[in-house]
This record gives sequence, structure tokens and C-alpha cells, in this order.
Amino acid sequence: EIVETCMQHFDATLNTSSTIAALPIWQGKTITITAGPTREGIDPVRYISNHSSGKMGFALAQVAKQLGAKVNLIAGPVNLATPANVSRVDVVSACEMHKASLDLAKSSDVFIACAAVADYRPDNVATQKIKKDNDVMQITMTKNPDIVKDVAALTANRPFVVGFAAETQDVEQYAKSKMQRKNLDMICANDVSVSGQGFNSDQNALKVYWDDGSKDLPLDNKDALAKHLLSLIHQTYNR
Amino acid sequence: EIVETCMQHFDATLNTSSTIAALPIWQGKTITITAGPTREGIDPVRYISNHSSGKMGFALAQVAKQLGAKVNLIAGPVNLATPANVSRVDVVSACEMHKASLDLAKSSDVFIACAAVADYRPDNVATQKIKKDNDVMQITMTKNPDIVKDVAALTANRPFVVGFAAETQDVEQYAKSKMQRKNLDMICANDVSVSGQGFNSDQNALKVYWDDGSKDLPLDNKDALAKHLLSLIHQTYNR
Repeated sequence: EIVETCMQHFDATLNTSSTIAALPIWQGKTITITAGPTREGIDPVRYISNHSSGKMGFALAQVAKQLGAKVNLIAGPVNLATPANVSRVDVVSACEMHKASLDLAKSSDVFIACAAVADYRPDNVATQKIKKDNDVMQITMTKNPDIVKDVAALTANRPFVVGFAAETQDVEQYAKSKMQRKNLDMICANDVSVSGQGFNSDQNALKVYWDDGSKDLPLDNKDALAKHLLSLIHQTYNR
Repeated sequence: EIVETCMQHFDATLNTSSTIAALPIWQGKTITITAGPTREGIDPVRYISNHSSGKMGFALAQVAKQLGAKVNLIAGPVNLATPANVSRVDVVSACEMHKASLDLAKSSDVFIACAAVADYRPDNVATQKIKKDNDVMQITMTKNPDIVKDVAALTANRPFVVGFAAETQDVEQYAKSKMQRKNLDMICANDVSVSGQGFNSDQNALKVYWDDGSKDLPLDNKDALAKHLLSLIHQTYNR
């Protein structure tokens, strides 16, 4: 009961942004966050991408900074301004994001893989625009490196690793399976089939799972969700 | 020599934006312009698109309005504000753009196909996110309807049709061949392999061809290029 009361108080405190500056819970720690989609080139003109706007990752970066962390933000192609005092690295493809992530993860305390990384890339990127001579076009694609899995597999300087799972069905099952398979410390699942949350929305709802617990973060602004999530990570990280 | 002097004077006049309002050369005419990329869904999360920013099409819409036209702007997914007093229709896929274009072209005097329309779309759009169980993924795609060709093939209420050709090699040859094959009245070719022009840039350079003539519009801001192009269309349209 005491714990519950404390939690409620803590939650209430986090909801007023003016108190944020007074609680630099991440002071002295480095948090690296990936955000946005990646783009995989087909030829100089065409590419494959996804509907991630980057808003959730950028909100996490902004709030992590406000909570005292040193923040690296690895961003795919998005139309968002860099939060104040956040160090931003722009990338385009999954391979570029993979390289930047492994470089920065080794000097980070927490790594949050919020980007919607393309799982596959076209086998061969054509150097000239492909002409549409045929009625049918085939694109053969190869699996991209798995960024969050490779960060979680680091044997030296491994950060606390938080993954995201954007699913359209069986959300809990897929998310928990992904956490175990990739050896993550925490996973945040969002059901992108529900309209008004997830991709391109200013709001989101997350179900967060870790080894021995879970928490529902109901529909809220991405800024407010970012505050809740970073406090949840802090509690688990400090056990 | 007189013609040349007049042309130079006309060009010089067009370069000062204050004179634009005094020359409503498109008064009483309706111009429909397509702009931006299209997006073709692979599943609820992934899509295929291209690097068009929509800036050239939006510049054409704004200038056409300033030159007195009633302007319809059919826009793919872009991050651009609608020019003042322009009627905008937002679309996502090539099929949606095709439908909107044929609807509006029939009541237009000029149709400018500036959008970078996806030539192909995936055969089947998956209703659930495709899982990455395999090391290789195949996407089979079908040809999209050809918007500018279908507008140019209208037998009743056919507008004056201007196409664009974004090429990376043999620009003149491909552009002229496209104009003839699709029965266009004019085509604007840009070499998107040259950095600093075309996709996502604020500048562009165009080579414009029509049945018995051509004109180079050298590297300039897209607004200035739009003015030159709309005056060139006007000259050819009024012959």
C-alpha cells in the first residue's frame, strides 16, 4: 500500500512539467535513442520506407535531456527539429543506423531503439533509374542487420537495452517473444492498427514489459508517455 | 531580331515578382497540377515511395494562381503548406492520384503532371504487418495506371498536357520519346542525377520540349522556374 501511494505520488509529480527540472534522475548518464523510419534505396529515385514519423523518439530525447541525461539521437529521415542540447546523428538506411548505434551504444548507459527500422533492403541498388518496360517488377530483398539485437549482444560496455515493437495483431505475445529472443531488458509494444495512436499521431499507448513485470501506459501525448517511460526505465535500471 | 528583343524583355519582366500581379496571363483559365510523390503500401507499416518533395509542383501552383488562373493542386504525401487560394486535393497512392486527375482534367484548360508517380504497386497489400521470418523477401509489383498518358488520351475536354521526366541518363532522348509515346503537348526534363537540382532541392534546371521547339531553363529557384515555365506554356498554348 505504501509503495502504491508512493507510485501514485511519483506519477502525479511527473505529470507537471515544472517539476521535471527539479528531478534530474538521469544526471550523469548517457542515453542513446534511435528515431524515425529508415529508407532503403531501390534506385536513385525510388525507395522503401515506413510510416514512422519519429515523434515518439524525439519526445524521448527531449524528456531524457530535461531529466538530466546526456542524449544522443540517431534519426532517420524525418521532418522534426532537434530538441535543445541533444546531439543528433542523421542517417538514411538501416545499415547506416546500425553502424551509428553500435558506435554510440558502447559509451551509453541506456539504449532505446525507438526507430522503425526497415527489416529488408533491396539486394542491389540500381545506379540508374529503372525503366518501366515490364508489366511486372520484382524486388528481391535481403534482411538488414538487427540493430537492437546486436546492441543487446554486446559483451563489453553493454547498455540497458529497451526495444519497441509495432504490431498489428497478438501484440503482447509478439512483444514478449521479441524481448526474449533479442535479450532485451525491456520492450514497449504499441498496436499500430488502432487509429489515433502510434505512427504519425501525436498520441500513443504503450504496453511495457520487462523480465518480471509489465505496465500499461494508456493513450496520452507522446511527451507525457516519454516521461512515464523514462521513469519506468529508471526504476528497472536501478534495481 | 524584334522577336528576340521582345522575348528578352518578357523574360526580364517575369523576373520581377511585382510585375506578376500586373500580368494575369492565365485569367479565366483552370490549371490542374499534380505534385509530390505517391506511396504504394506493402502492408500496414511499409510502403514504396520516391524522393520527390513536391516543391516544384507547389511552386507552379502558387505562380499559376498569381498569374490569374483557377488552380487545382493534386498532392501526394508532402510536408508543404497549400499556396493561397489554391484548391488542394490530397492523395496517397498512384491509383488515387489517377482518379483525382482524370476527374479534374476534364474541366481544366491545362494539366501539368509534375508529381513523381510510382510506376508500380505491390500486387497484394497485406492487411497485417509481414513478419521477417525469412532471410529473403520478394515483392511482386504491377504497373500503375499512367496518369499523364490517360489525361492526354481524353477525347472530350482534353486539356493542354504538360509532362515531366525525371531522368538519370540520356535525358533528352528519354524525354522526347515519352512526349511522343504519351501524346503530350510539352515535356519538362530534369536530370535528377545532378546534385543541387531536382528532388528535395529548392533549385532546379529544366529542358523543355514541345512539338517543334525546345528551351533550356537553367538552374534557378523553383519559383523563378515556375514563372518561366508558365509563360512558355502560355506561348505554346495560345499559338
